[in-house]
Amino acid sequence: MKKQSAILFLSCEDRKGIVAEITHFITMYEGNILNCDQHYDESGMFFMRVEWDLTDFAIPQKKIESAFEPIAIKFEMDWRLEFSTRQAKMAILVSKYDHCLYELILKNRAGEHNGEIKLIISNHEDCRPIAEYFNIPFYCFPVTKDTKTEVEKQEIALLRKEKIDLVVLARYMQILSGSFIEAFPRKIINIHHSFLPAFVGAKPYHQAFSRGVKLIGATSHYVTEDLDQGPIIAQDVARVNHRDNVSDLVEKGRNLEKNVLSRGVRLHLEHKVLVFGNKTIVFD
Amino acid sequence: MKKQSAILFLSCEDRKGIVAEITHFITMYEGNILNCDQHYDESGMFFMRVEWDLTDFAIPQKKIESAFEPIAIKFEMDWRLEFSTRQAKMAILVSKYDHCLYELILKNRAGEHNGEIKLIISNHEDCRPIAEYFNIPFYCFPVTKDTKTEVEKQEIALLRKEKIDLVVLARYMQILSGSFIEAFPRKIINIHHSFLPAFVGAKPYHQAFSRGVKLIGATSHYVTEDLDQGPIIAQDVARVNHRDNVSDLVEKGRNLEKNVLSRGVRLHLEHKVLVFGNKTIVFD
Amino acid sequence: MKKQSAILFLSCEDRKGIVAEITHFITMYEGNILNCDQHYDESGMFFMRVEWDLTDFAIPQKKIESAFEPIAIKFEMDWRLEFSTRQAKMAILVSKYDHCLYELILKNRAGEHNGEIKLIISNHEDCRPIAEYFNIPFYCFPVTKDTKTEVEKQEIALLRKEKIDLVVLARYMQILSGSFIEAFPRKIINIHHSFLPAFVGAKPYHQAFSRGVKLIGATSHYVTEDLDQGPIIAQDVARVNHRDNVSDLVEKGRNLEKNVLSRGVRLHLEHKVLVFGNKTIVFD
Amino acid sequence: MKKQSAILFLSCEDRKGIVAEITHFITMYEGNILNCDQHYDESGMFFMRVEWDLTDFAIPQKKIESAFEPIAIKFEMDWRLEFSTRQAKMAILVSKYDHCLYELILKNRAGEHNGEIKLIISNHEDCRPIAEYFNIPFYCFPVTKDTKTEVEKQEIALLRKEKIDLVVLARYMQILSGSFIEAFPRKIINIHHSFLPAFVGAKPYHQAFSRGVKLIGATSHYVTEDLDQGPIIAQDVARVNHRDNVSDLVEKGRNLEKNVLSRGVRLHLEHKVLVFGNKTIVFD
Repeated sequence: MKKQSAILFLSCEDRKGIVAEITHFITMYEGNILNCDQHYDESGMFFMRVEWDLTDFAIPQKKIESAFEPIAIKFEMDWRLEFSTRQAKMAILVSKYDHCLYELILKNRAGEHNGEIKLIISNHEDCRPIAEYFNIPFYCFPVTKDTKTEVEKQEIALLRKEKIDLVVLARYMQILSGSFIEAFPRKIINIHHSFLPAFVGAKPYHQAFSRGVKLIGATSHYVTEDLDQGPIIAQDVARVNHRDNVSDLVEKGRNLEKNVLSRGVRLHLEHKVLVFGNKTIVFD
Repeated sequence: MKKQSAILFLSCEDRKGIVAEITHFITMYEGNILNCDQHYDESGMFFMRVEWDLTDFAIPQKKIESAFEPIAIKFEMDWRLEFSTRQAKMAILVSKYDHCLYELILKNRAGEHNGEIKLIISNHEDCRPIAEYFNIPFYCFPVTKDTKTEVEKQEIALLRKEKIDLVVLARYMQILSGSFIEAFPRKIINIHHSFLPAFVGAKPYHQAFSRGVKLIGATSHYVTEDLDQGPIIAQDVARVNHRDNVSDLVEKGRNLEKNVLSRGVRLHLEHKVLVFGNKTIVFD
Repeated sequence: MKKQSAILFLSCEDRKGIVAEITHFITMYEGNILNCDQHYDESGMFFMRVEWDLTDFAIPQKKIESAFEPIAIKFEMDWRLEFSTRQAKMAILVSKYDHCLYELILKNRAGEHNGEIKLIISNHEDCRPIAEYFNIPFYCFPVTKDTKTEVEKQEIALLRKEKIDLVVLARYMQILSGSFIEAFPRKIINIHHSFLPAFVGAKPYHQAFSRGVKLIGATSHYVTEDLDQGPIIAQDVARVNHRDNVSDLVEKGRNLEKNVLSRGVRLHLEHKVLVFGNKTIVFD
Repeated sequence: MKKQSAILFLSCEDRKGIVAEITHFITMYEGNILNCDQHYDESGMFFMRVEWDLTDFAIPQKKIESAFEPIAIKFEMDWRLEFSTRQAKMAILVSKYDHCLYELILKNRAGEHNGEIKLIISNHEDCRPIAEYFNIPFYCFPVTKDTKTEVEKQEIALLRKEKIDLVVLARYMQILSGSFIEAFPRKIINIHHSFLPAFVGAKPYHQAFSRGVKLIGATSHYVTEDLDQGPIIAQDVARVNHRDNVSDLVEKGRNLEKNVLSRGVRLHLEHKVLVFGNKTIVFD
C-alpha cells in the first residue's frame, strides 16, 4: 500500500498492442507493474489503469509525463498520471448535520483515506467545535439568496488559495452554482440521500416514505450542473418496513450516507475512478 | 406451520381496548393466539393481524365471521378473515422468459408456497412443455392490438371459472387493461425488473446501464391501474459494475426477479400482507 | 417514540389465554397497547414482549409490578418490567482502538441510543482526549497479570457506585474474569470481530485470512463465562477477496465492528432483547 | 463473451518484466488482450490471468502451449492454458434434494454456464424424472457401506469414459473417498450448507439453530481430502431470527445453497479461478 507508485489512467479507441506497448514502456525503465486493469465498452473504447512501483524506475517523477507522451499521441489517448505518495488536499463543505463530517475526519485520522483535510467550510457555526477539536481550520460563510454569488466567489478564492484538489459535500444544504462547479470539474463529490435516480431532489426520505419502498439508499456522485445527475461512484441500500416513519428513515439513512460518501471519497483518493461521459469506471 | 389457524386482518381508527377486545374474543372461545402484530401510523390509523389456532376453537369456521362482526362494527373496522388451511388457487401469466415460471413451480412443489397453481396462461407457446412436464393446464392466448380486449375477456372468464384467487405476472409482457385489473383487485402480483420508483416503464436494464448505477433492483408489487405504481411488497438489489453490459444486467437481474417475485407471492399466500392506500404493511 | 411507555417481557410454558389475560390487564387500567409480540418455541415455551402507553394508565409506575404479580404467579412466568423513559446508565470499556468508542458516543449524542454514557474505563491513556472532548468521565486502570484481580475489584466498585446498567466492551482487549461477569449478568455486551462461531478467540482476522474466506463478519453478544459463546444479539458480514491482506481485513472489519456493536447496544437499550438459555429473542 | 479467446493462468516468484514479456508475446502474434489481471501476495508470489482474442492470433490453438513454453521456463512458472470456446464436460452428483440440480440445469440451459452437463449420477432414483425431462443421461448407483469402494470405481470409470472435466456435488449426501478425490484434483466442487469454517460436518442447520446465530450461510469449495477444508470459491449469507426453527433454516438455506453453488460453478467454468495452496484467487 505504502509503495511509491505511479498510476496511469487512459482512454482511447481500442487497437491491438496498447497494453503491450504501455507495459513495455514501464518495464524498459525498470518499473514493476503492481496493477493493470482494462475495460472495453461496446462502442469500441478502451480504458486502462496501470500502477507501477517507482522504487527502481529510471525516469524521475517529473519527467514521466514527457517520456510517455509519444505513446499517448500515437494512440490518441485521453490520459492522466497520478502518484500514490501525493496526498490530495481536501475541503469539506457541511451545514448542520455532522455525521458525514465526523466519518470523513475519523477515516482520515485512521489512515483509511489517502488525503489531507485542509479546511472545513460551512454556512452555519454548528460544526465549528468539531473542527477545533480536530485542529482543522473552519470557515463560516453564511449564505442568503442575495449574498450567494458573492459568497461563492470568496469560497472559490479560498479553495484555490489552499490548492484544494477535492471538495466533499458532506450534507451541505446549498445548491452550488454552475460557476462553482466549473471551477472544480470532477473534483466535487456529493452524497445524495437516496438510491439515484429514484427520489431526485429535495426530501428524498419523505418521497421514499410516501412511495412505501422496502429499501432506502444513498448515492455518492461527482457534481455536475444537472442536479443529482452526475457520474455515480458508489451506492448502497438498507432495509426498511412499514414501522419506519420518516424520522426512522432519516436515522437509518445516516449510516448509509456516511458509509457511501466515505467509500466514494476513498475510491477517488486511491485513484481508482475514471470518469467517462456521465458514468464512472471504478477499478476496484 | 401446518396448524389449522384463522388469520384476522383489520384496520380502523386507533382507540383503546382494540387488542384486548379481540384477544378476549379469541380466548373466550378457546382459541390459542399464535401471532399478534399491530401497527399504528401517524395519521392515527390502527392495523392488526392476529392468528390463532383453531384446534379447540369453539366456533366453526363458517360462523367465525358473523360471531366477530359486532366487534368490527363497534370499532368501525375494515377487516377480512383468512384460513391457513385454505390453499389459494393461483394462475401464472407468462410470455417467453421462463425463469420466474420455473421458480414459482419449484417453490410450489417444494411446499414453500402455500397455494395451488391451477393453470398457466401465455401469449406464446414457448412455455407449454414446462407446463406439461409439471402437469399444469396451459392456455395459450395470442394477443394482438386488435384482439386484446376480446382475449382479456376470455382470460377473465377462464380465471373466474377456475375460481382463481391470485394472478401472478411472471414476466408477462402485456400491459393489462383497467377492466382486467378491476376484475381482480389486489389479487394480481407483478415483478418489475428495477428498483421502483427508479426506471419505471420499458427496458429498465437499458435505463440502468445508461445511468451508470452501481446496483440494480427488482420489485414485486400489486398491480393497479397506474403502471408500476402499485403497492410494493418486496424489493431487492444486486451489485453491478462498469464491466456489466446490458446483457449482463439482464442475466444478473434474472436471479433478482425470480427471488423477489417468489418472496412477494409467498408473503401474499401466507396471509402476511395488508394493503392500505398505496402501501403495504408486511407482517413478517 | 418518545411516549412514556411500559415494556413487559415474559416467558412461561405455553397455555391458552395468556395474551388475552395480559392485554385485558392493560386495557382494564386504560393502557393503550403499542406493540405486542409473541414467540413460541418447539419445546412449548411461550415468550412475549408487550409495550403500552402510560399516558392514561391508571396504575402509577411504581405499583405496576405488584399489580401484575398475580398474573405472573398464575402462569408461572419469568418476567421483567422496563420503562421507556428510564435511561440506562452505560459504561464503555475500551483499550486503544477508538472506532467503536467514537461510534457509541456519536450515536448517543445523535439521540439514536436511549442511554446515558456515564463513564469510560480503559487500561490505556490513549482515549482520554476523546472522553474529555465529549465531557465524559474517563478512568484509566492499567492492568497487568499481577494486578488484574485487584483492578477488577476497583472497576466493579466504580461501576456499582455509578449504578451502571450496561457495560459495553468496545474492543476492550482484556478478558474479564468470572467474578466480573457474574457481577453484571446479561449486562455486558461485547463485540467479537468475526462471524461467530467461526474464528473464536484471538486474531480472528488472521484466522480468516489464512482460511481464505470470501466474507468476514462481526458479532455482538452478551458476555458469559465461556469466551465468545454468549448469546448473540447481532451479526453482519462484508465481502473480501484475495487482494485483501490481513491489514485490509482489519480495516474493512472496523466498519462492521462499530455497526454491529452499535446495533446490539441499541437493541438492548430499546428493551427489545430477551435472553433465554444461550440465545436471544430480538423483538424487532 | 462469445469471442474465441485464450486464457493463460500462471504463478511464479515475482520479478520485473513478467507482465511486459507476456503481453509482448501476445501482441507480437497479433492477439488483442481482453483482460489482464495480476495479484501479488506478501510472500513474494506473483499470479496472473490474461485473456486474449484469438481472431487474428497468428499461432494455431494447438501450438500456443509450445510457443509459450520458453517464457514459462524462464520465469519458472506454474501455468495452464484454457480456451473460452472449449465447453467443459460436467457431471452432477445428487442424492434426493433436487433444488441445486434444477438450478444447475436451468442456468445451463439459459446459457449462463459455459459447460455441458453430460450426465447425472445419484445414489437414489428420485431425480431420474428430472434428468429424463431435460434429456440428460441418469445413472443410479445405490451405495452401501460394503459396496462403496466398488461403486466409486464404477463411477470413476464412467466419469473418465465420458471425459468429465468438472464434477459438481449438488447436495450429494455421500463422503467421497480419497481415491475418488485424487482422480479429479481441483475438479470437484461441493456446496456446504454453512458459512465455513463455522459448522463443519453434519447437520449445519441444526448447529446454527442451537448456537442462535443471526445469519446462516453457504459455501462452495473445491473438494480435498480434509472434509469441508478445501479452497473456498464463493460464500453468501441470509438473515434469520428466533422465529426460524430448523426447518425454516433448511428452507431459507435452499436459496443460498443453489445460488452459491451456481456461482462457484460459473466462476470455474468461466476460467476465473486459480487455486494456490488452500485458497482461491478469483479473478472476477
